[in-house]
Amino acid sequence: MSNRTLIRGGLVITAAEETYADVLIEDGRIAALAASGSEAARAWTAERVIDATDKYVIPGGVDAHTHMEFPFGGTASSDTFETGTRAAAWGGTTTIVDFAVQSVGRSLREGLDAYHAKTDGTCAIDYAFHMIVSDVDESSLKEMDGLVGEGVTSFKLFTAYPGVFYSDDGKILRAMQKAATNGALIMMHAENGIAIDVLVQQALARGDTDPRHHGEVRRALLEAEATHRVIQLARVAEAPLYVVHVSAEEAVAELAAARDKGLPVFGETCPQYLFLSTDNLAEPDFEGAKYVCSTPLRPREHQAALWRGLRTDDLQVVSTDHCPFCFTGQKELGRGDFSKIPNGLPGVENRMDLLHQAVVDGRITRRRWIEIACAAPARMFGFYGKKGTIAPGADADVVIYDPAAEQTMSAATHHMNVDYSAYEGKRVRGQVETVLSRGELVLERREFRGRAGHGAFVPRGLTQYVN
Amino acid sequence: MSNRTLIRGGLVITAAEETYADVLIEDGRIAALAASGSEAARAWTAERVIDATDKYVIPGGVDAHTHMEFPFGGTASSDTFETGTRAAAWGGTTTIVDFAVQSVGRSLREGLDAYHAKTDGTCAIDYAFHMIVSDVDESSLKEMDGLVGEGVTSFKLFTAYPGVFYSDDGKILRAMQKAATNGALIMMHAENGIAIDVLVQQALARGDTDPRHHGEVRRALLEAEATHRVIQLARVAEAPLYVVHVSAEEAVAELAAARDKGLPVFGETCPQYLFLSTDNLAEPDFEGAKYVCSTPLRPREHQAALWRGLRTDDLQVVSTDHCPFCFTGQKELGRGDFSKIPNGLPGVENRMDLLHQAVVDGRITRRRWIEIACAAPARMFGFYGKKGTIAPGADADVVIYDPAAEQTMSAATHHMNVDYSAYEGKRVRGQVETVLSRGELVLERREFRGRAGHGAFVPRGLTQYVN
Amino acid sequence: MSNRTLIRGGLVITAAEETYADVLIEDGRIAALAASGSEAARAWTAERVIDATDKYVIPGGVDAHTHMEFPFGGTASSDTFETGTRAAAWGGTTTIVDFAVQSVGRSLREGLDAYHAKTDGTCAIDYAFHMIVSDVDESSLKEMDGLVGEGVTSFKLFTAYPGVFYSDDGKILRAMQKAATNGALIMMHAENGIAIDVLVQQALARGDTDPRHHGEVRRALLEAEATHRVIQLARVAEAPLYVVHVSAEEAVAELAAARDKGLPVFGETCPQYLFLSTDNLAEPDFEGAKYVCSTPLRPREHQAALWRGLRTDDLQVVSTDHCPFCFTGQKELGRGDFSKIPNGLPGVENRMDLLHQAVVDGRITRRRWIEIACAAPARMFGFYGKKGTIAPGADADVVIYDPAAEQTMSAATHHMNVDYSAYEGKRVRGQVETVLSRGELVLERREFRGRAGHGAFVPRGLTQYVN
Amino acid sequence: MSNRTLIRGGLVITAAEETYADVLIEDGRIAALAASGSEAARAWTAERVIDATDKYVIPGGVDAHTHMEFPFGGTASSDTFETGTRAAAWGGTTTIVDFAVQSVGRSLREGLDAYHAKTDGTCAIDYAFHMIVSDVDESSLKEMDGLVGEGVTSFKLFTAYPGVFYSDDGKILRAMQKAATNGALIMMHAENGIAIDVLVQQALARGDTDPRHHGEVRRALLEAEATHRVIQLARVAEAPLYVVHVSAEEAVAELAAARDKGLPVFGETCPQYLFLSTDNLAEPDFEGAKYVCSTPLRPREHQAALWRGLRTDDLQVVSTDHCPFCFTGQKELGRGDFSKIPNGLPGVENRMDLLHQAVVDGRITRRRWIEIACAAPARMFGFYGKKGTIAPGADADVVIYDPAAEQTMSAATHHMNVDYSAYEGKRVRGQVETVLSRGELVLERREFRGRAGHGAFVPRGLTQYVN
Repeated sequence: MSNRTLIRGGLVITAAEETYADVLIEDGRIAALAASGSEAARAWTAERVIDATDKYVIPGGVDAHTHMEFPFGGTASSDTFETGTRAAAWGGTTTIVDFAVQSVGRSLREGLDAYHAKTDGTCAIDYAFHMIVSDVDESSLKEMDGLVGEGVTSFKLFTAYPGVFYSDDGKILRAMQKAATNGALIMMHAENGIAIDVLVQQALARGDTDPRHHGEVRRALLEAEATHRVIQLARVAEAPLYVVHVSAEEAVAELAAARDKGLPVFGETCPQYLFLSTDNLAEPDFEGAKYVCSTPLRPREHQAALWRGLRTDDLQVVSTDHCPFCFTGQKELGRGDFSKIPNGLPGVENRMDLLHQAVVDGRITRRRWIEIACAAPARMFGFYGKKGTIAPGADADVVIYDPAAEQTMSAATHHMNVDYSAYEGKRVRGQVETVLSRGELVLERREFRGRAGHGAFVPRGLTQYVN
Repeated sequence: MSNRTLIRGGLVITAAEETYADVLIEDGRIAALAASGSEAARAWTAERVIDATDKYVIPGGVDAHTHMEFPFGGTASSDTFETGTRAAAWGGTTTIVDFAVQSVGRSLREGLDAYHAKTDGTCAIDYAFHMIVSDVDESSLKEMDGLVGEGVTSFKLFTAYPGVFYSDDGKILRAMQKAATNGALIMMHAENGIAIDVLVQQALARGDTDPRHHGEVRRALLEAEATHRVIQLARVAEAPLYVVHVSAEEAVAELAAARDKGLPVFGETCPQYLFLSTDNLAEPDFEGAKYVCSTPLRPREHQAALWRGLRTDDLQVVSTDHCPFCFTGQKELGRGDFSKIPNGLPGVENRMDLLHQAVVDGRITRRRWIEIACAAPARMFGFYGKKGTIAPGADADVVIYDPAAEQTMSAATHHMNVDYSAYEGKRVRGQVETVLSRGELVLERREFRGRAGHGAFVPRGLTQYVN
Repeated sequence: MSNRTLIRGGLVITAAEETYADVLIEDGRIAALAASGSEAARAWTAERVIDATDKYVIPGGVDAHTHMEFPFGGTASSDTFETGTRAAAWGGTTTIVDFAVQSVGRSLREGLDAYHAKTDGTCAIDYAFHMIVSDVDESSLKEMDGLVGEGVTSFKLFTAYPGVFYSDDGKILRAMQKAATNGALIMMHAENGIAIDVLVQQALARGDTDPRHHGEVRRALLEAEATHRVIQLARVAEAPLYVVHVSAEEAVAELAAARDKGLPVFGETCPQYLFLSTDNLAEPDFEGAKYVCSTPLRPREHQAALWRGLRTDDLQVVSTDHCPFCFTGQKELGRGDFSKIPNGLPGVENRMDLLHQAVVDGRITRRRWIEIACAAPARMFGFYGKKGTIAPGADADVVIYDPAAEQTMSAATHHMNVDYSAYEGKRVRGQVETVLSRGELVLERREFRGRAGHGAFVPRGLTQYVN
Repeated sequence: MSNRTLIRGGLVITAAEETYADVLIEDGRIAALAASGSEAARAWTAERVIDATDKYVIPGGVDAHTHMEFPFGGTASSDTFETGTRAAAWGGTTTIVDFAVQSVGRSLREGLDAYHAKTDGTCAIDYAFHMIVSDVDESSLKEMDGLVGEGVTSFKLFTAYPGVFYSDDGKILRAMQKAATNGALIMMHAENGIAIDVLVQQALARGDTDPRHHGEVRRALLEAEATHRVIQLARVAEAPLYVVHVSAEEAVAELAAARDKGLPVFGETCPQYLFLSTDNLAEPDFEGAKYVCSTPLRPREHQAALWRGLRTDDLQVVSTDHCPFCFTGQKELGRGDFSKIPNGLPGVENRMDLLHQAVVDGRITRRRWIEIACAAPARMFGFYGKKGTIAPGADADVVIYDPAAEQTMSAATHHMNVDYSAYEGKRVRGQVETVLSRGELVLERREFRGRAGHGAFVPRGLTQYVN
């Protein structure tokens, strides 16, 4: 007989349903759901029974945008795959999609292999990879087909960071054309980096070196411009498009306009854009550096457009773009020159809770919470059904969530390997209680039961949003 | 032990999931789903076992817009609740929401009671009521609160049909204000009936009396105008809005613009607008009369906008507006004067199949098929969970659908009480095989097993789209 | 030899040109312009020579929207044609277009004749008439053709004021259809009066009786809605459309959207919407009543959209809607019930100066000042060439304007027959110095030289904006 | 006494007025206009009297976009300044604004001096220069200030032609920022040249080498994209923007959207986009090469949007982009490789007549004809008042135009130095009869009276559209 776990009496919430049901897990997968109290449910037995009365039973979170131990600006993000995936689990996330990186002049294969090596045996939860394409040419384009076959089905390019990750419009177009033929999904960091670099140099020349100038020079209009541009390139290529970390109201408007035309254009935003603003970037004593990321935080007024976009489905996914750098020793590299501050924020542990707070605040429904945090990212990147839902046959990645618990976010208590919290002191309602990954306990009533190496690579299919 | 039915081996499709699962029914409700072949599934037994191998197992259809035995233009629609609900079941629809009618000068109560009387003991499947409000005044507004309490939570008004159902903008505004306080959903037939009547009279005066002129005078711009208008009235009232039978591209654009602003505005279209056009209205020998309905069929070019609206979720629901009149004796009342043709088409039996054909044609996904035909109408009108899905706890309204069957639509074979089919001769792929209503067989391998009186009134909660 | 006047040395400003030129007037018309100092100019002699050095020489203003001695709400506007046209001349306006009124149940002819009788022998400056159509039927529609032939080529209808001037959408459509055939221009007061009346009654029932509630109940959305509606009706009728007194940003957006489509849709705003706001309506001690007009004053934020509309030519004309009622005895009729306050503001004397102040403030150019105040209204209503410009052959309606003068607007010094100024205490730069009407002095260095009866009826041709 | 010419009895048409007036010229400038038959007019005498009875008297055309003897693709446009300006005069154009070119690595000064050298003593009519900036750096940016002082107040950059004229977005932004400080106007060729070059290479690799592929690869979406992009860059720089040779409907939409926001964004189109289409590019036997220019000709459906843009003033100027290459020996360079066809069409002689034909066809009014062809280009580029109108003080650049004449366009009869006509065989109504440049006859009843060297450089002020 199989290894069975039974979760009793909770409110099972998926993107589509809210049902009082008992969940039966067999051999790491969801075997069945039965209405609580039904004869069928009452008949079940299991080795392990978890009481979820008064709790939510939700799919494990899927964070489709993380950067563990990511090299940037001469340093690397401070969470390793080991620390980062452990922190993710603490926060109710059971799958991350991180970014393997092609170096300029090297193959995609080499970059991907390096990431397989980094993750092998280190992760507490399952993981997948997008591939950053730094060097579009005949050879790398051809490699894309192979990677799709291996389950790396999404490729990220940048209109930002000239000289580093930047691709010109011709390269972007070629990658999109390739995606149109092999079904891959192109992800774009959309900011006009060429124009922004001019503004950066002008600001520094004026002596505007503080972190808040990072937000000022990376103009919202230049995010919207690049968003519009990559949408048009995708139309020319007849390929779908996913725009990462949308932060500006004007960029949301570009997505909405494209979607009204029926174009397969998708957008992601992140908790930092929903909950933080340029007010944080302006914090004194260089504290603003903690909030330096790109696209940058925007004035508070942009938040309403992002929430609206999440409600109208003009934005489909909330990921973290988790890319932590310690304030001491890392963020400090940019004292006196904001352009040298490593770009990135910690957040992989906070996402599910912050979005639950949005439910409490009436911004989104419970089902939409699960959709943007679990179901949509899985579906977007081709592994919904296995992840992102609680349904017969799915992997048993399940979170028991206590909606009534209260917590205060803080670096003192979080599990991410970074010396500050972007949400220090923030009170939220709701907390992860227990986490299962493929049926195994990772967190049990807030005791960590996981282990490095439990997490496995998830090969993905093509995006389920257009196929 | 409870009365159990087990559906084995099918592909269970809901708005959110596609899962090979066995479905266990206990006492008329979905008790559990288990992954096909799982230990849990294999352990189940039941009195009745239905083999669904190679079939789809889908929620019974919800048709949120029907008019059985509806008085119009001096006659009445030709399907009684008995014949109409039987035909619905044949077509895979297990719930209809019909319209109780307030007569001018009479109370809502009186109108509703009359409909309860008509339906009591006659229906093969479950049914609910919207209420047509013909006479907005202090008294009828007050009655709305009571009806919401009785499960009649949606109210329809008209900017069309002056002198019959028409309400002026002040009355519409007052009804919307009431809905803003009691949570009801206002449904609008949006055409500028006052302006249209001028064009009707001018057309008849010119001798343009054929059915095709019905389509010409009911200008698309005048549907879009009224759609825009009722959206603005709803904004003033701060009430949600549902626009029925949207047919014009320009009206879809008004809905899309409103939804981009985050307004709680919703839209329904119907199969006739998706599959038929003014070409049909122009059929010779008065045959065009078969296709006279309001809003009217539009030129073929509008169809793309409707399909796009269904894909972008700017339209949420496909209902039939089933309101059949026999060609002989009823449609013929309008020979020589198109304005005397009773408005309405048969369709309640054809909807699920036509929309499945759209899946076959690649216009929508299978999940979206179920969403627009089952889940969204149930959620829109406040009874999702009970109807519209296959999930533990839901009513066991289940259709076994054969996606490989082929059929030809025809009045010769349909079960609606009307002497023509709007889709005569149309070949489609897919057919309803077996239908369960609350666990009871209504159709079994295309043998009718239902009975008048099985169907029960479904009291509804408030719309689940905004609450 | 003819009667000659020569204006020397000024800067002649028209909608198109700014030229230092001498202007020669023969027999009441502009005979010639010559470059200042040219041989041709130096050769000219005249009986009367006016030195315009350092002054602007501009066309006399055309105010296309005034209501002298206009019956409203049981009283009548306090300026007669005699006092009102005199005040207009003081303010640099040399032509008004007032509104003849059809009474319900009476003919257009009767209404027009009454206005000819009122104006005959009383006006200091030239005047023309629009016709208010209160009763659209076969007979009045037929009369429209005749009036066009007599030089009354524009007809105003209302979606506001149910029971008084209101026409339903069918009547509006019919009038527009008539205009499409005879070249007339339909003018619309666009507010959803039916819905507004509901809000008025609700406000009064709540005890919200102060003047500021007048602004609150006449919702901007309900102006925008009616604007959208009449645009669509005009599209159906294939007729051009002129929307009077546009005040809401959302209504400007409707006009702009229509114009982007190339539709012949035009808009007018008024100084009160450009310079005043709901702050004025909220003045204590019933002082807000001074600012009660419909469309109402809007929150200050709307002003930017109006100025932008004037710059982008989405609004073409600034008229006054001059309709003064004394505070004492007239405005006071609405104490305790804002709906009884006569609607209207004085302004015919202030328009040219207020708009010049906008030039000083950098909001519009000098040429645009002349365009929106002189040229465009003349062209819109079919008498440009005769009025609205300084060009050979035009009527010699000329204003010598001192751009450097300063003045303070006040009821103590104005010439309108009303006991308050809407702009009391406002300092502006620029003042009318001398006014000629058809070559005759009406104002000479701020001494009144005019006379009742000099002003003549101006029969107008069809709008020159679409013909 | 001065040298006087008198034009009697014509209909003087400017952008604002249509007046029967006699025009008196003294010493090369318009001295005065007098109403025909007025005492003032009758009093005038002159050495030369031109009878303009039944003719139009219009300002000489201003063609703001020509390329005489322009180096492109290894050859040079076939009209010298001598032949090109003579042909312009034949076609009723009395001022051209040509493009001086900075070479990469050289100064603006050097480029401008070379063009002064080319034009000195060679032109039949007046001329001015825009400056093409090929190399944006500190030094060239500084030079811009000096050139503005010399009357070269507009600077053209390209998002097209990588490796030749292309500037990246940072360079464009910097030039715009400079323009924001010195009042210059940035002109943009807006196509995404980087993406287009990818499509060009792919087409050639596929063997799609015919001229029609030139039109196919230069996608309308990629013109619209670049148009949107440069608008956003101009917003960031807070500078006005002029987009040259707009050809795609989608690009017009971008301009219209920007203008609705009140942005100082302007657009030019050309006769070839209004009268020709991809049908011409598809002419067999390589004849399509005659129509190769960039932006390319578009499908016929785009023309309606361009005409609408001209009517709604979303497009302000019609220039020719005259850049002729002989079919034999020049266009032929691209046989077998469309990318080697020199880009450009002849047209400087045809513009006024083609646009008059649009008046005849009812597409634009007579006044709008003069506005888009004479007044607006002069005003856009800072020399209105001197050129572009007939008003006291203006240069006496006057065309006597016969609206009733008929002509057939043909290379056999035209005066441009090119072996084909883009409008071969086209019949139009209207023809230039007599042309004066600063009061001197250049063309007299279709006899050429001009001379190389009459034409003088016109230093320009700042654009009069925003100042």
